[in-house]
Amino acid sequence: MSAAPEYFAEFPIIAFEGEETANELAYRYYDKNRVVLGKTMEEHLRFAVCMWHTFCWPGSDVFGGGTFDRPWMSHPGGTEAAALKRATALDFVRKLDLPFYCFHDVDVMEPAADVAQYQRNFGMAVDHLEQLQGETGRKLLWGTANLFSDPRYAAGAATSPDPEVYAWAALQVRSALDATHRLGGANYVLWGGREGYETLLNTNLSRELDNFGRFLNLVVEHKHKIGFTGTILIEPKPHEPTKHQYDFDTATVYGFLKRYGLENEVCVNIEANHATLSGHTFEHEIAMANALGIFGSIDANRGDHQNGWDTDQFPNSIEEVTLAMVEIIRAGGFTTGGFNFDAKVRRQSVDAEDLLHGHIGGVDVIAAGLLAAERIIEDGRIDAFRKERYAGWDGDLGRKVHAEGTSLADIADLAVAQNLAPRHRSGKQERLENLVNRLV
Amino acid sequence: MSAAPEYFAEFPIIAFEGEETANELAYRYYDKNRVVLGKTMEEHLRFAVCMWHTFCWPGSDVFGGGTFDRPWMSHPGGTEAAALKRATALDFVRKLDLPFYCFHDVDVMEPAADVAQYQRNFGMAVDHLEQLQGETGRKLLWGTANLFSDPRYAAGAATSPDPEVYAWAALQVRSALDATHRLGGANYVLWGGREGYETLLNTNLSRELDNFGRFLNLVVEHKHKIGFTGTILIEPKPHEPTKHQYDFDTATVYGFLKRYGLENEVCVNIEANHATLSGHTFEHEIAMANALGIFGSIDANRGDHQNGWDTDQFPNSIEEVTLAMVEIIRAGGFTTGGFNFDAKVRRQSVDAEDLLHGHIGGVDVIAAGLLAAERIIEDGRIDAFRKERYAGWDGDLGRKVHAEGTSLADIADLAVAQNLAPRHRSGKQERLENLVNRLV
Amino acid sequence: MSAAPEYFAEFPIIAFEGEETANELAYRYYDKNRVVLGKTMEEHLRFAVCMWHTFCWPGSDVFGGGTFDRPWMSHPGGTEAAALKRATALDFVRKLDLPFYCFHDVDVMEPAADVAQYQRNFGMAVDHLEQLQGETGRKLLWGTANLFSDPRYAAGAATSPDPEVYAWAALQVRSALDATHRLGGANYVLWGGREGYETLLNTNLSRELDNFGRFLNLVVEHKHKIGFTGTILIEPKPHEPTKHQYDFDTATVYGFLKRYGLENEVCVNIEANHATLSGHTFEHEIAMANALGIFGSIDANRGDHQNGWDTDQFPNSIEEVTLAMVEIIRAGGFTTGGFNFDAKVRRQSVDAEDLLHGHIGGVDVIAAGLLAAERIIEDGRIDAFRKERYAGWDGDLGRKVHAEGTSLADIADLAVAQNLAPRHRSGKQERLENLVNRLV
Amino acid sequence: MSAAPEYFAEFPIIAFEGEETANELAYRYYDKNRVVLGKTMEEHLRFAVCMWHTFCWPGSDVFGGGTFDRPWMSHPGGTEAAALKRATALDFVRKLDLPFYCFHDVDVMEPAADVAQYQRNFGMAVDHLEQLQGETGRKLLWGTANLFSDPRYAAGAATSPDPEVYAWAALQVRSALDATHRLGGANYVLWGGREGYETLLNTNLSRELDNFGRFLNLVVEHKHKIGFTGTILIEPKPHEPTKHQYDFDTATVYGFLKRYGLENEVCVNIEANHATLSGHTFEHEIAMANALGIFGSIDANRGDHQNGWDTDQFPNSIEEVTLAMVEIIRAGGFTTGGFNFDAKVRRQSVDAEDLLHGHIGGVDVIAAGLLAAERIIEDGRIDAFRKERYAGWDGDLGRKVHAEGTSLADIADLAVAQNLAPRHRSGKQERLENLVNRLV
Ligand SMILES: [Co+2]
Ligand SMILES: [Co+2]
Ligand SMILES: [Co+2]
Ligand SMILES: [Co+2]
Ligand SMILES: [Co+2]
Ligand SMILES: [Co+2]
Ligand SMILES: [Co+2]
Ligand SMILES: [Co+2]
Repeated sequence: MSAAPEYFAEFPIIAFEGEETANELAYRYYDKNRVVLGKTMEEHLRFAVCMWHTFCWPGSDVFGGGTFDRPWMSHPGGTEAAALKRATALDFVRKLDLPFYCFHDVDVMEPAADVAQYQRNFGMAVDHLEQLQGETGRKLLWGTANLFSDPRYAAGAATSPDPEVYAWAALQVRSALDATHRLGGANYVLWGGREGYETLLNTNLSRELDNFGRFLNLVVEHKHKIGFTGTILIEPKPHEPTKHQYDFDTATVYGFLKRYGLENEVCVNIEANHATLSGHTFEHEIAMANALGIFGSIDANRGDHQNGWDTDQFPNSIEEVTLAMVEIIRAGGFTTGGFNFDAKVRRQSVDAEDLLHGHIGGVDVIAAGLLAAERIIEDGRIDAFRKERYAGWDGDLGRKVHAEGTSLADIADLAVAQNLAPRHRSGKQERLENLVNRLV
Repeated sequence: MSAAPEYFAEFPIIAFEGEETANELAYRYYDKNRVVLGKTMEEHLRFAVCMWHTFCWPGSDVFGGGTFDRPWMSHPGGTEAAALKRATALDFVRKLDLPFYCFHDVDVMEPAADVAQYQRNFGMAVDHLEQLQGETGRKLLWGTANLFSDPRYAAGAATSPDPEVYAWAALQVRSALDATHRLGGANYVLWGGREGYETLLNTNLSRELDNFGRFLNLVVEHKHKIGFTGTILIEPKPHEPTKHQYDFDTATVYGFLKRYGLENEVCVNIEANHATLSGHTFEHEIAMANALGIFGSIDANRGDHQNGWDTDQFPNSIEEVTLAMVEIIRAGGFTTGGFNFDAKVRRQSVDAEDLLHGHIGGVDVIAAGLLAAERIIEDGRIDAFRKERYAGWDGDLGRKVHAEGTSLADIADLAVAQNLAPRHRSGKQERLENLVNRLV
Repeated sequence: MSAAPEYFAEFPIIAFEGEETANELAYRYYDKNRVVLGKTMEEHLRFAVCMWHTFCWPGSDVFGGGTFDRPWMSHPGGTEAAALKRATALDFVRKLDLPFYCFHDVDVMEPAADVAQYQRNFGMAVDHLEQLQGETGRKLLWGTANLFSDPRYAAGAATSPDPEVYAWAALQVRSALDATHRLGGANYVLWGGREGYETLLNTNLSRELDNFGRFLNLVVEHKHKIGFTGTILIEPKPHEPTKHQYDFDTATVYGFLKRYGLENEVCVNIEANHATLSGHTFEHEIAMANALGIFGSIDANRGDHQNGWDTDQFPNSIEEVTLAMVEIIRAGGFTTGGFNFDAKVRRQSVDAEDLLHGHIGGVDVIAAGLLAAERIIEDGRIDAFRKERYAGWDGDLGRKVHAEGTSLADIADLAVAQNLAPRHRSGKQERLENLVNRLV
Repeated sequence: MSAAPEYFAEFPIIAFEGEETANELAYRYYDKNRVVLGKTMEEHLRFAVCMWHTFCWPGSDVFGGGTFDRPWMSHPGGTEAAALKRATALDFVRKLDLPFYCFHDVDVMEPAADVAQYQRNFGMAVDHLEQLQGETGRKLLWGTANLFSDPRYAAGAATSPDPEVYAWAALQVRSALDATHRLGGANYVLWGGREGYETLLNTNLSRELDNFGRFLNLVVEHKHKIGFTGTILIEPKPHEPTKHQYDFDTATVYGFLKRYGLENEVCVNIEANHATLSGHTFEHEIAMANALGIFGSIDANRGDHQNGWDTDQFPNSIEEVTLAMVEIIRAGGFTTGGFNFDAKVRRQSVDAEDLLHGHIGGVDVIAAGLLAAERIIEDGRIDAFRKERYAGWDGDLGRKVHAEGTSLADIADLAVAQNLAPRHRSGKQERLENLVNRLV
């Protein structure tokens, strides 16, 4: 397989040139070697380009066909086309000077019509990826199996009413997890796009949840069996394509993990767009995952606040990312996780250059957010106010509440005995928001 | 206390008169003694009138003052007014011929300025309620404490940054729980309207969740200590008045209960309006609570699909209620729970009669939904299709998946060995929806 | 062209069998010859099957490929396949015993790579449709041109930044309008799915609106030139595929028409799903169109209240349709318009039979809604209350307000002179909703 | 009336101190004398403090009572309290060194029980305001009448079913408009919070729209009669408190104005929060008002993207405001309009200082947005790309489309003759978004 990746040939490797550069194809904030809060930006942010939207999506939507004219899409079914796509993808990551990429099994392989083809074609793809990783020095942030595009998954994969579909899902996940392990992947992701329902009228919720819980337990067991030490991640999303998805949001995933005994085995891959679709802010989902002990990784895709579907756009709000970054730092930063871009350029953005603009902009927005978060942390006023606000909980009464043996009646009696008449104090929201703006 | 409840004097006791009655102040479907699926409608539905919106809310909204002219509101601070309100409320429940009522502590008492007044005024109210229950033959579905209206709770009650506020909350909950026990209440509810946050900038999520978990454990412990055998219920809601409420939806509450070891102690009181505000259907929340083993009770208040706030309207869709009722029956029906109306008539509905129209309409919509659900269950086609759809899980492969010792690799190998090529089958959604319409 | 339509061969012609029939493939409410409010149901409802979702959509969505196995889709590019699709479609309408069908140009023709092919292939299609109309006795409710699927329309058609794209749109609309005229179509529709913007950063709003207004004027002029006497319709939608569509809702379309002098030339084709996506109820859009004098026709597709995209489902709520039907009757009913089903069966509904279930259910829900609306109109209580509520406007003061020469000061002075102190009266919303439920 | 405004006594006049100041009670961007694009910032932005939320709202919400402890609220019904409120308000504007304030009639006056009291109390208030304007050097951006809080307006004011309510509205608007004229106000605003409906069942849409159109015509006529040369403004909002408000958004208001012949007489006062509630961005509403020729003024209140009600928060996103400011500049900037803050501090923000933080933050966010917009305009790349994108419309084909006498057929024939095959070109959305981030 010697397909030469020419698609981005005209573009140089993207370099850090600083805030004042006039070059639109340079980083203005992302200086990979700059140390921020004790780690380099590269170590902090662990950026990954995703194969799915950037190399496989043809620019189609529900109302119209593909608009992109990528060389590897002209013969989508061919062995050569698949190889060219893989080679171009890793070349693109190298051009962006980002450390990681990530993929679904079907993103990287020639399409397969049956089990045997699936195994053969995916095997060839993994061999090639291993070679390309060596040649380009890129690493794998995570692998995953696509359990949603094939018609067989129309009614779910691990939650399909048909156990044969479940078995196909097991085959794909086993293959993708083994491949991720072999390729040195840092995490393995499950996105349950079809794990939900269209109508309760034909759905046995309880049975589907139990099948799903069983599946996840089998995946975790397999991980340990093969010695994979990366993190297993679930990416929450409330709905779309389903009417309701079981992995609705971080809190829902936590309850699910807890129910099936997996809260110490599985973390979440939080997508900004899925957060807002589920009625939360991006930073909320991170803070909640941190509070619940399941923070793992980030999918940077943002949504559009006026549109109720998954627009999967590149991040472009430094303000929003700063608030998310503050929560990531509060969570201790990434261990195996990182920032992946599973974002898509707009359907009208048909030029090769547009893929660069999308990624460069996304990288820089996040890097600028990290720098702003550093300023907020180092400034310390917000954290100090927050700490002071809860100071009572470190005092006598706060300790008494949590002391062993204290009862509801004890606390109520104390309120009576001391004739407590607590005054509400200002939460200083406007002041704190001003401080953020001062530091972004 | 001899306040004579005259407000509804002109109205007779509301009776069942059948579908064809021309009387707008009669039940057309709710025949309390009719046996449906083995229980009378009264036993099935366990209707309760709530004090809060029906007797305390003056018809105000964020943009305007109260429009109602209720006798007990003219001197809201008085002892007499509070007594009149209680007496009128139980008289109203009697007029509707419904078995239950429910209340917040502050709904039934003269306002209190301090701890001592709180205890005295609430004590008087409970004495009077006990007497009124005897006189009118009405029972208490649940009691609760209002931990959201007083300015002291502006930043939360059990999640307040100030432990003195927490102590006040403990006092109110202890009082309301004791009163509920004494009055023979079937359940005790916690609605955490302020248990959430306005901005993450000043919020310690982890600390607030732990304080909240501690509080709920103390409540459960107190319940057992006093011998209350009713159910402790949490009413989920995603937001409003807070930006984010911790009891977002049923799945979130489940995760919270599981985390703090309370999943066998606490159930949910599901409100239709809160379900839709959190991005779910009403029936979804019931089905999910059933699957998770925490289904408790129902707040019938519906929302408006075009308005993004809690409109708390009386139910008026038999179609929607039928789907919810099917899930309630699948969940085994109510044990201690029931249907409460914490709904409000619209701000323009200023007549006494409008309170009757609201409740009669709500009761009849739910009763009609129960009858439709009975037809659906007895028809059996929907359940039969659903059962058949999962039949594979009762076969060899399904059993193998769940057998002890089966691994992911075993299942994947089986897919390969048998060259599985499952075909997607129709989910028959349109047919099932037609069947529902045929039976509503 | 003699392609034999065999796809629905096993199904009989769907007949009215009444409410109690056990036959799931029969009408329970739609009795085409039954007279309702002075017209037969067939004349009232003017049902049409749409080619687009029922015969062209392969069951794909953004996350997965087609699930349907229709004979005419196996070779989508072929002359024979296009003919088979047309023949099957008209046979299907005949099987449903509905009077109308409707189509986009590209729905009915072999795909075309250039202008010449477009003209030839569409011409062949129209010849064949004319023949099929004769053979099956079906009529055309409306024709339209697809100005959104081809990549050329990625940035709009009449609002494209490229006038060559505008010229292509002119070609397609001229062709489709001429064809509609020749085939005896009752209306011609424009759905501006791409007439909007993705980002204001690259958009000249004013220029696009003017180009769009010019286009619509040219279409109207052409209609008159060729002697087409049907109605030109615009189908409002707020967004999707665009971030913002110019035809946001009925009120927006009215302002647009008024601005370009077309308010007496163009009406709206209101889709239930687009209504709810734009923040309105279905019945609101009809009532507003009626008030503004631009009510035309209906696309019956409903949405899902929890999902923020265009799910285009078959109607299944008699309650919702009844309220819409009341407004249609208030608007005087259809003249050239009718009810079209551009709905799609769910992606899992892969059987031929499912297309029947979808349409039969939709027809019956609407027929039941018509019968309920008849009862509401004939009962008269709701209209009587509404009339009485405004009675003051027929009195002295009301007349004075509208009298020529009355000034603001005159009215204010009158308020002072008479010391007006109007009392708010009940709007009786709960009572009215109960009345509706009594009559549905 | 000599009530001494002491509430803000401890605070100095807020001054511009530059971006690096450590003083949280100083402006960092708002340098009122700095010249930006040919005008000083003060002339550009024309900031106004609103009485309503800042001096009248007690910190209540639907679930709880007032939390604020303002001296003028302790005896809300008193003559002295009203005077103190007025004096404190204008002192506050002076402290902020902003040029304008604005008010509803009832904000500034002692409450009135009847027509006579209304006239007397409002008259006293206006006298006092005139004196205070002189003393403090502050000016009136706009006046308005509160036609939504009093119970009489529960069913609307100009759209009330009761003409006596309409007459009361005429009285208030005449008074408020006369007062605005006398006080030298630059605009007069109508916010139709109750001009809409709760249910179509009791609503005569057509009649209400006609009454509303008549009212607005009377207002405009009165304006001319008294010689008021300011602008009449309507503030669009989609709903809340009503289910549906007639002034849904800018496009809807335009259609309404056009229908009643007022499109050259009335402009819009666009609120950021109302824009997002209606499904649009803030900048969209401005761009649309500009395209339609009705851009007037701005209410800076923002919403919360996760909450579906009118949170009316102070602006805190420089990114969002920058995009809005670009559209304001494209619209030629304000003439009589300006930026008003009708925002409320959060219910927990109970300190006097919090009112300062809210306003200072809001002012600075908008000032920073203006500076960013200046950079974007001066950079020119975004505008240049936009211009180039439409270049074809300045060419032969574009001109031909708009030439008199060109028909649809002419354009279609041209497409055929030239065998047009236009290629879609990149809209460069990612690049343009990056450019914005570079310049914010
Ligand atoms: Co994602
Ligand atoms: Co996504
Ligand atoms: Co409730
Ligand atoms: Co509620
Ligand atoms: Co449609
Ligand atoms: Co649609
Ligand atoms: Co406003
Ligand atoms: Co507002």
